[in-house]
This record gives sequence, C-alpha cells and structure tokens, in this order.
Amino acid sequence: REFDQYLKQNDKPVLVIDHHETSDGLGDVELIDTTAAASALIIFDLLKYADWKVSQRIAQALFVAVATDTGWFQFSNTDSRVYRSCAELIDIGANPAEIYHNLYQKFSFERFKLMARMLDTLELHLDGRFATQHLLQQDFEQAGATYKDTENLIDECRRIGTVEAAALFVELKDGRVRCSLRSTGAIDVRKIAQKFGGGGHKMAAGAHLPGPLEKAKELIKTEVKKQFEQLEA
Amino acid sequence: REFDQYLKQNDKPVLVIDHHETSDGLGDVELIDTTAAASALIIFDLLKYADWKVSQRIAQALFVAVATDTGWFQFSNTDSRVYRSCAELIDIGANPAEIYHNLYQKFSFERFKLMARMLDTLELHLDGRFATQHLLQQDFEQAGATYKDTENLIDECRRIGTVEAAALFVELKDGRVRCSLRSTGAIDVRKIAQKFGGGGHKMAAGAHLPGPLEKAKELIKTEVKKQFEQLEA
Repeated sequence: REFDQYLKQNDKPVLVIDHHETSDGLGDVELIDTTAAASALIIFDLLKYADWKVSQRIAQALFVAVATDTGWFQFSNTDSRVYRSCAELIDIGANPAEIYHNLYQKFSFERFKLMARMLDTLELHLDGRFATQHLLQQDFEQAGATYKDTENLIDECRRIGTVEAAALFVELKDGRVRCSLRSTGAIDVRKIAQKFGGGGHKMAAGAHLPGPLEKAKELIKTEVKKQFEQLEA
Repeated sequence: REFDQYLKQNDKPVLVIDHHETSDGLGDVELIDTTAAASALIIFDLLKYADWKVSQRIAQALFVAVATDTGWFQFSNTDSRVYRSCAELIDIGANPAEIYHNLYQKFSFERFKLMARMLDTLELHLDGRFATQHLLQQDFEQAGATYKDTENLIDECRRIGTVEAAALFVELKDGRVRCSLRSTGAIDVRKIAQKFGGGGHKMAAGAHLPGPLEKAKELIKTEVKKQFEQLEA
C-alpha cells in the first residue's frame, strides 16, 4: 500500500504489467494479459518486441518467476507458452537445475525436522478428501524451527491421491491457532477462512482461530464437510 | 534379457533408439543421440522428420517419458530442447497438470505414512553432507505399507541444502538390510554398493547388507566418509 501511495503521488508515467485483472487504475498504461501464466511471460514478450537485450541475469529472473507461478510447471496454468518461453530463457543462459536447487533444495535440517513432525500428524477425514495436520509449540522447540519454516509445508499432502482439501493448524504462543487452508479446486476455502475473520483465495486461504487445537479442528472440519455436502446436493 | 534373446533370434530388422551409448550390437540400425535428455526426444524428432502423425496419446506418452527422465524438468540434463519439445507436445494435446498428478500425486495414505516414519529417522552425518534414514519391519506393519511403497522415498532428503549423499536402510524379513544409496555427484555410490556385492550407477546404487541395522549403517558410513576424505585430499 505504501508503494500504491508512492505511485499515485509520483508524476512520472506508470506502466502496469500484470496477468491478473486490475481495476485499481494505478497505471497510465496497463499491459494486462490474463491468459499468461505469469507476468514474467508478458515482460519477456515486451522485451523481445522492443528489441531490448535480455541478459543472462534477466533470463534467470524471468525463469524463476515463471517457474514459481506455475508451481514448477505443474499447475493447470502451465501451457505451451510457458515451456516455449522457458526454452528461450535457457538458450539465453537460465539454468533450470541450478534454479530448482536454489528454490526447492535449500531446506535447513530444522525445517526438515519440522516437516517430518507435521507429516506424522496427518489425518484423513471425509473419505480421504480432507487432510488435517498440525504443529504445536513443542514441535517448533524440538525441531529448533520457527514459524517461517512452515512455509508451503501444507502442500506436501497434495501427494495423496484422494486429498481435495487440506488444513494445517499451528498453535501460536498466545494460545490461538493459525489455520492454513488449501483446495485443489473442488471447494472454496476462502469462504471458510472468511467465516473466521480470515481471507485469501479460492484455493489458498487462512484464518486465526481460538484454541485449543481440537476445537479449532472441529470448527474447520464442520465447514469443509458442509461444502462437500453442498457439492453433492 | 528375454527381450534381448527375442530380438537376436528374430529375423526382422531392428531399429535401436537410445540416448545412452550402446555396444550390445542389437540393432541393424542404431539411432543414438547421447545429447538428448530422453530417448523420447529422439523419437519425437524422428516422427516429425518422417512426417508421421503424432496423436494426442503419443504426445502424452512422450511427455511422460521426457518428464520422468528429467525428474520433472529439474535434473542437469534439462536443456532448452526439453522445454521446446514439451511445448510442442502440449500443443498436440499433452496435459502437464494431469500428467504431474498421475505421476506424483497418487500416493496412498499408507505410503504417505511410511514416508512420514522414514523422514522422522533422518540423521545428518559428516557436517550435514551425508543423510541416513531407515525403515524397520514394524514401520511397514504400522503404516500398512509394503516394500514397493519405499520407491523414490530416498530422494526426499535431497531438499536439505547440505546433503550430498544419502542412504536408506530397510530391514528385511530375513534379517538382512537393504541399503539404497544416492549421490548428488560428489561421490560415487556405485563403488560403495559394489563393495557389498551390490551395484548401480554413480549417483544411484544399492546393496544388501547383513543386519542388524546399526552395523549396516556403520559399514556404509565408513565408506562414504572415506570417499569424502579422498575428495578433500
């Protein structure tokens, strides 16, 4: 929001490049392509169109942006434009193996131990469609990990074939429970998060709930169950 | 080997397509391209060159072959040819998100629980460069899993930034210990496996060792340590 303010007060022309619909009117020129899997693809095409030199560093940066926005080429937004642009970026000097290593293979032992603890708490509900996991204060202490180490860990359980929604409950120091929610698309987890004062997107959302853990789990499970029942109705 | 026999006895001409060096003389014509990350890339180029129709099913199959041979576009063999060919295969009808799901997101709950148990045994040795993990008979029983469920689980610990070699020890019913070894390239794990009557490649190998687990672990750790020391010498 500070950046918003800065842009609005600045008297220089502003170019907005995005692959989401925008309606904030920030840009004097808006280059929006909602068919692009990543804004980096639009930037790459613009650079080529303008005939500006794409250096190896720029190629690496664009590759990282495309790779992360497509979940390393696995999300449903991954089309041939993604692969074709990445081929060009590699020819310029982007190094996929190195980028993959830097993005996904830099876990600390502490974060890894935290993940192991979390995975050990995995439970399946609703015929395997809903997965829950949790982390208690003592798990962080015993793994020597911090809240930051929970990043993306909720996505691990997507590997189970039956899972269509997942929740990770993290016990906070103040006794509340932070709940992260994921959906593969069947249900809308934002609606659930909003019920408890949280927010997010249809497929990724979160909220803070009153403790204890078991109570928080029940609250969320009830809402997830309702949505699955509505789907079938 | 039965297929070898069949090919040798058959009087039809044999075309061998491979991206490994071959010297078995099986083919009347050998189409070898060791620069290709996957044989599927050679096949795809041949189909295009011959102007044979590549159907959606063929495109899907070729995409699967390229994706698995490159560890889903992350291994060091992943060059621009890989991405460019995959872009073309997507245009023909291959669906990356669907293929990813079928390849990597079909874990059973049992296999997932087995993985959680294995991750919980992870230990780092030699300044974090060597990771060991194990699975006992009781782990399989408690997870309701089978030996087949261990497939590729050893690769999970590659996510730890410091790990350059890894071993997974699986206690067998006959009391022996199956050891799977991985290297990121620094050391040659085939040499270690061969010492104990096993085999494999430089970066992936395995052997059967006499039990109990702790003894087997020490044997392997000693050999891994030797190789790291030789590297530094």
